[in-house]
Formats: sequence, C-alpha cells, structure tokens
Amino acid sequence: MSILTIGTVAFDAIETPFDKVDRILGGSATYSALASCYFSDTVRVSAVVGGDFPDEYLERLKSRGLDLDGLEVIPDGLTFFWAGRYHFDLNGRDTLTTDLNVLAGFDPVLPESYRDARILCLGNLDPRIQLSVLDQVDGPDLIICDTMNYWIKNTPADLSKVLSRVDALIINDEEARQLAEEPNIVRAANTIRAMGPDVLVVKKGEHGAMLFLDGSIFWAPALPLESVVDPTGAGDTFMGGFAGHLDRCPVIDDNELKRAVICGSAMASFCVEQFGPENLFELTEDKIRERIHAFKSLSEIPAPAVASV
Amino acid sequence: MSILTIGTVAFDAIETPFDKVDRILGGSATYSALASCYFSDTVRVSAVVGGDFPDEYLERLKSRGLDLDGLEVIPDGLTFFWAGRYHFDLNGRDTLTTDLNVLAGFDPVLPESYRDARILCLGNLDPRIQLSVLDQVDGPDLIICDTMNYWIKNTPADLSKVLSRVDALIINDEEARQLAEEPNIVRAANTIRAMGPDVLVVKKGEHGAMLFLDGSIFWAPALPLESVVDPTGAGDTFMGGFAGHLDRCPVIDDNELKRAVICGSAMASFCVEQFGPENLFELTEDKIRERIHAFKSLSEIPAPAVASV
Repeated sequence: MSILTIGTVAFDAIETPFDKVDRILGGSATYSALASCYFSDTVRVSAVVGGDFPDEYLERLKSRGLDLDGLEVIPDGLTFFWAGRYHFDLNGRDTLTTDLNVLAGFDPVLPESYRDARILCLGNLDPRIQLSVLDQVDGPDLIICDTMNYWIKNTPADLSKVLSRVDALIINDEEARQLAEEPNIVRAANTIRAMGPDVLVVKKGEHGAMLFLDGSIFWAPALPLESVVDPTGAGDTFMGGFAGHLDRCPVIDDNELKRAVICGSAMASFCVEQFGPENLFELTEDKIRERIHAFKSLSEIPAPAVASV
Repeated sequence: MSILTIGTVAFDAIETPFDKVDRILGGSATYSALASCYFSDTVRVSAVVGGDFPDEYLERLKSRGLDLDGLEVIPDGLTFFWAGRYHFDLNGRDTLTTDLNVLAGFDPVLPESYRDARILCLGNLDPRIQLSVLDQVDGPDLIICDTMNYWIKNTPADLSKVLSRVDALIINDEEARQLAEEPNIVRAANTIRAMGPDVLVVKKGEHGAMLFLDGSIFWAPALPLESVVDPTGAGDTFMGGFAGHLDRCPVIDDNELKRAVICGSAMASFCVEQFGPENLFELTEDKIRERIHAFKSLSEIPAPAVASV
C-alpha cells in the first residue's frame, strides 16, 4: 500500500524559552512523511525546495526510505523559511518570519508513479494547490487534509471546494471553531462534517485529540511529558502517524480510525521531545509499540471490581 | 459507610451569555453532597446558613436523604452569597459579588454522630477551618480536599499544614501550576504530591481530568456536550461523585481511584446541563450508569484487528 504526502520541506528557525536553533530541517511534508514511514513501506513526497537545500538533508530523508521523485528542486530559488518563537508554556507561539521563496510558485505535477497512492495526505497549503493535486490522483481510498486559519479566513471558497472532496480533515480546536463559526466544539464538528469530510480530527495539543465520526466521538489523551523541547511539527507528525496506521489496514473502519488517532498522538509525542524532526529519524517499532501501550495505560478505565452504579 | 462533606451552602446569582438566575441554591457542600448521595446512603453535611435560608431549600436537601444535623442556622445572620458572570465560551468567569455573611464566623463543631465518617470531603474553605475539622474526626479512611488560588496565595502556611494531612487533593490545572510554581503539569504534580497528598486530581474543565498516583497517571475525558448551560458547581459535583464511588469500595486502590474519577466526571457532566444543582435532584441510577458507559465508549481504544506496530 502507499501514502502520498503533499506539503512543505523547509528551513525552520525556532526559539523556545530554553533554547534556539537556526535553519534546521522542517516543513509539514518532512514531519508527516517521516512519521508515516514507520508504518508504510511506500511513502512518497511532493514538495519544492531551492538550490540552497543541502544534499545532506536529502540523503537523510532518503535514508528513511522516502520516495523523493516528486520533490522538485529549483536550483536558482531559495527554500521556504519559517521562524517562530514559543511562549513560556510552549502552548502558544509567534511567527517571526515567513519567507515563501520557491513555495510562492509551487504548482506540483505528480510523477506518474505517484498517482495511484492509496492514501493521500494534503498538508497545510494553499487550497488551490490541494485542488490541483486532487485532480491528479486516481481515486485514493482515503484523502486526509490539513489547513489553517490563514486559508479559512482568506480563501474560503477554494477551501470549501477542497473540503467537499476529502474524507478526513485534521485541524486544531481553534481552527475548528473558526471554520464552523461556532464556539461549542460538538456543534462545530457537526457543521464541519456537513461541509464534506466524514471524519474530523480536532487536535488540542497538550489536551489530546478528538475524533468525530458518524454517531460517535472518540477522545484520545496526549501523553503527559515532563519535558517538551519543541512542539514544531507535532500536528504534521500526527497526520503522518494517523495515515501510516490506516495504510496498514485492509479495511478502514471506525475502530481503525480510533487506533489511528492513538498512533498519530504517539508519533507526535516523540516529535516534541527534541528540536525539529530529529527524534523521527531515531525510532524503532519497539519504541513506538511501547509508546502506544503507554497511551492505553493512560486512558484505560479499569473493569469494576465492586458493584457501583 | 459514610461521607462527611464540609463546605458552603449558599445563594448564587449566575449570568451566562444566554441567561441569568438570581439567588438560587448553591454552595460547594450542596453540589458535593447531592452528587455523593447517589452512591452512598449516609452523606452528612457541615455548613452554615443564615435565617434567610428558606425552609423549602432545607426540605429539598433532606428529600435527597442528606443528613443536615451539622448544618448550623444563624437566625439573625445572612446566608453566604456569590454572584458571577461567565464569558462567552463558558470556560472563564468573573466574580461580581462575594458576601461572606455568616460564613465569616464559620467555626464548625461537628455533631458526635459525624466524627466517625469513613470519607471526609474538605470543600474549598479557609484552611484554618479545614484544620479544625481534621482535629475533630476519628481517622477517616480517606480525606479528600479542595482549595483555590485565594488560599494558595494568602494562607500558604495553613494550606501546607492541611496538605500534609490529606490523602487526595482535587484542584484545577491553573491552581496546580500556581501551588507548585511550575508550568509543566507533570512536574507540578510531583511537587504537589511531595507536599502530602498521595492522590492528586487535576481538573481541566472541558479537557477532562488527570489522576496522579504513585508511578502512574490516568487521563479521564470530559463528556463533549452540545449544550452547557451553567458550569457553576461542576468541580464540587466532581468531588461528590469521586467520594461517592470510593465510599462503595471496601478497598480503595488505584483502579477504584480511576473509576472514581470517571464517576466524578459523569456527575459533573450532569451538573452543567442545567442552572444550579437542579439536575442533581433528578437523577436515577440508570441515568448515571448510562453516562458512565458513555465515558467508556468515548475513550476506549479498540483492540487491534490487524497487525500494526
């Protein structure tokens, strides 16, 4: 089976209250694909970088088995650059710089080999790019989409077209409230699911994630961590783990979607333990299995030992 | 078995963005005891009211089987009055009025029949009152305590004495961070448990609750509700349901503490569906059982159907 991830491959400069790094490997497709590759043998990346993107970074991504045939390199262009500074509790952040560079003209043409992907992950990009990709694939089993407040506010018509064509939307709680124009998250979820996606995941950072399905809601915890180093990319990593688990499932049903949320949460919990995607290069199946088990222990309600109500 | 609840019995005036009520029945002991009485046959209340407290309210409380022998009535005093206004999303609120009235001189003398309580619930009050009650009971099996930012800031020495003598502390996440002077909630929990309580419950409102035990953490969801009418008393109701479940358990162990968090969360979810404690007069064991089951469905991770990591 196979996953196709469209998104950014970027340089990130990140400041937290405790440390800072400059021009490290980043981007939504980077995080998402690195998380997916622990679950799926075939993870394809469509993105764009400039001539300044180091061969060393390309080699590191290839070393994880990623298919980079669809990674366009524009020799005389510069790679997308993002700089941000996190607040004291690491829950909020300010964007300091966004240099789109080669991303400004990104108009992906998928290699022929990419078009039959089983699962398509549309990373957070201009909805017009997401639509163009939707027109190039041969009916994936599952289309997963991310977006952000910028597109919700500035390109609602195009975003609406995207939403009508995707199966699963993964956004955070603030974005969900903004997209639905509704503060109550249950009502917001109903509104958003009526826009197209049958499956809605609302990410709540340190408060976990909620999965909204037909007639049921699933609530996944976040792993309580004593040390969070850098939350950058946690949401993209979640999408990668979510898609990764589902690519292993011959049939994608509600139970597997719930398990996919746990896999996404587990991968995100690794992501935040180090700066950038470093941790995502170092995992093993054993470590991931252990982490998923930690999520179970965390939220499992013991069977009753005594008669209670 | 038996539960003794010390706290306030009050008049509340509550404004939400959608409605308002004036001088309804309120107070921490009211909510907590009403929640406990669905689990335990013997729920005793120690509190104080003024001569203005209507007989009708006393009768309503007695109709739920509460023992009010320790409810002091000061005929020429006025009942504690609190008024508050909730913000648009109902997560925050401003206190508009706090008239302590008879609460200012509250110095409970427990009736002899109260002293052998199996579970003691110390509602949010001046730590000096909590200490005085601790001196009057005959070694309960479990002492549960609530407090708030006011006492954390203004009476740290007395609060510290209380904490050294209680088994379980139930506070919200903001209070936990303030008490431990530590933004990370896992490290904050470690610090607080070192102050005395073996068991710490951190309530996070719509984000659920976390239970910190020796070497393990349990994460309970909050029920996603389409309509929240009034969050007043939800935390006290949580304590009442938590204590109620434990009073049914011959042995209080980690598994029963986890189940108690679910019972507390279930009772709190009923509380917020109507203004004041109204819903807590109308429940049945069936309704409560159904609600607890809803919590299980919400957070249960399905067993794997396919090989995954």
